[in-house]
Amino acid sequence: MKLEILSEQRSHGGVQGFYRHESAATGGSMKFGVFQPPQAAMGKVPVIYFLAGLTCTEETAAIKAGAQWLAAELGLMLVTPDTSPRDTGIEGATGDWEFGEGAGFYLDATNATFASRFRMYSYVSSELPSLVEENFPADIGRSGLCGHSMGGHGALTIALKNPQAYRSVSAFAPIVAPSQVPWGEKALPLYLGEDREAWKQWDTVELLRTGKRFDGMILIDQGDSDVFLAAQLKPQLLEQACRESGQPLNLRMQAGYDHSYWFIQSFIADHLIHHAQAMKR
Amino acid sequence: MKLEILSEQRSHGGVQGFYRHESAATGGSMKFGVFQPPQAAMGKVPVIYFLAGLTCTEETAAIKAGAQWLAAELGLMLVTPDTSPRDTGIEGATGDWEFGEGAGFYLDATNATFASRFRMYSYVSSELPSLVEENFPADIGRSGLCGHSMGGHGALTIALKNPQAYRSVSAFAPIVAPSQVPWGEKALPLYLGEDREAWKQWDTVELLRTGKRFDGMILIDQGDSDVFLAAQLKPQLLEQACRESGQPLNLRMQAGYDHSYWFIQSFIADHLIHHAQAMKR
Repeated sequence: MKLEILSEQRSHGGVQGFYRHESAATGGSMKFGVFQPPQAAMGKVPVIYFLAGLTCTEETAAIKAGAQWLAAELGLMLVTPDTSPRDTGIEGATGDWEFGEGAGFYLDATNATFASRFRMYSYVSSELPSLVEENFPADIGRSGLCGHSMGGHGALTIALKNPQAYRSVSAFAPIVAPSQVPWGEKALPLYLGEDREAWKQWDTVELLRTGKRFDGMILIDQGDSDVFLAAQLKPQLLEQACRESGQPLNLRMQAGYDHSYWFIQSFIADHLIHHAQAMKR
Repeated sequence: MKLEILSEQRSHGGVQGFYRHESAATGGSMKFGVFQPPQAAMGKVPVIYFLAGLTCTEETAAIKAGAQWLAAELGLMLVTPDTSPRDTGIEGATGDWEFGEGAGFYLDATNATFASRFRMYSYVSSELPSLVEENFPADIGRSGLCGHSMGGHGALTIALKNPQAYRSVSAFAPIVAPSQVPWGEKALPLYLGEDREAWKQWDTVELLRTGKRFDGMILIDQGDSDVFLAAQLKPQLLEQACRESGQPLNLRMQAGYDHSYWFIQSFIADHLIHHAQAMKR
């Protein structure tokens, strides 16, 4: 697969780059960011994917999460994909920050209108790792998933659906039960149709209920002043599903923190350490 | 002085805020950012001003420099002013990224067209510190200056002109001799008139030549792949002026780094430690 280099800049002894390529999974051009730590110059390093939330792009976490300094210390590659296909030209795919472009929900759409392009699950779980392995010194056998909000939903569902492919998973303020909250109740029928049974494979709480497990502790930070906490995020639903299913979970409520990257950058170090420790197993 | 809170968000155990106020120095509304470290909840803490470069705002360094995590550890308050007055309505003050709005050059203009508003020197060296002292738990007697590019010029000139007011100074890729480079040769006559004698008090190399000194080591990082290095930055002129005048300087050329915040965030930790050490004296 051919990769176009948009930029590569020295940072923290490594390289922060942004890239574009034609994606088979999403049927169009996709962009992503890669931070290569200094250790990548000497050999393959583990890879952490950071999946961003609604309205975000491949640049958001790269610029705002403040992860590079510690990734450089720990020898972790950071990959930041975009949150959806872009310039789809599909009617209804733009103009609403909660659905469509910038809001791919890390699923594969089945609704005919969106099914050809909105396949972020296949993109993130399959095409992107191959691309990263092919083009960067990535030890793809040591991969971890992290995400924020909609991207936290992406990290958790992708990890539960492919537990063998990832060593570690963590999230900031994730959507854990999209079937039960307004964001999901808007997006899931548009992507998947009205049959709620079809939504379940894209819902962390439902995946746990139907027996999916991740081999390892799920680390989650959630601000208690997050404006989306009560209506959209509902971490207590995840807590209950983990308890009932025996899934190890470390859910940390953080006093005074909101939904922003000021919150994420405050705890990103703990997440990177969580991932780095799993890479040593 | 009345301060309008634009936003205050919990970050790294402290608070990242953005504020607006009516400025006497610049005759209009000004914005700035403040990161209060957790230690500020217990008492007054030292203050580091970060002066940004051409085109930047009060948000740029706050979002991109990656300084908060270590400022929280070291107990440093970070203040990020805007780079000029805004919405001046002055003809010629917009439309050129190298002059006017977004390019205040941290001087007090004397050219009648700009003299009423473009007074960033008075703003940063006098009005802003008073405002910070009045509204935040800032130990203004322990202040440091840091800056990037045009803001590095600001940090160095303000420190040399007011050595008693600052404990420490550092810069990333600073403009050190604006009188001798295209950025200054465009902006200085517009702000100050054609008489080059008048430019000298806003030129680090000239200030050193005329006997100004800073009591302490000046720390500077400069990328050797900075596209502005040869024509605009010329650190060798500063090196020579420091050598001839006995000003202690630690100029570090960083291989492969450019002019961006990817460069700044790679070395900001060293700068914060440099400032923190000076605060202990």
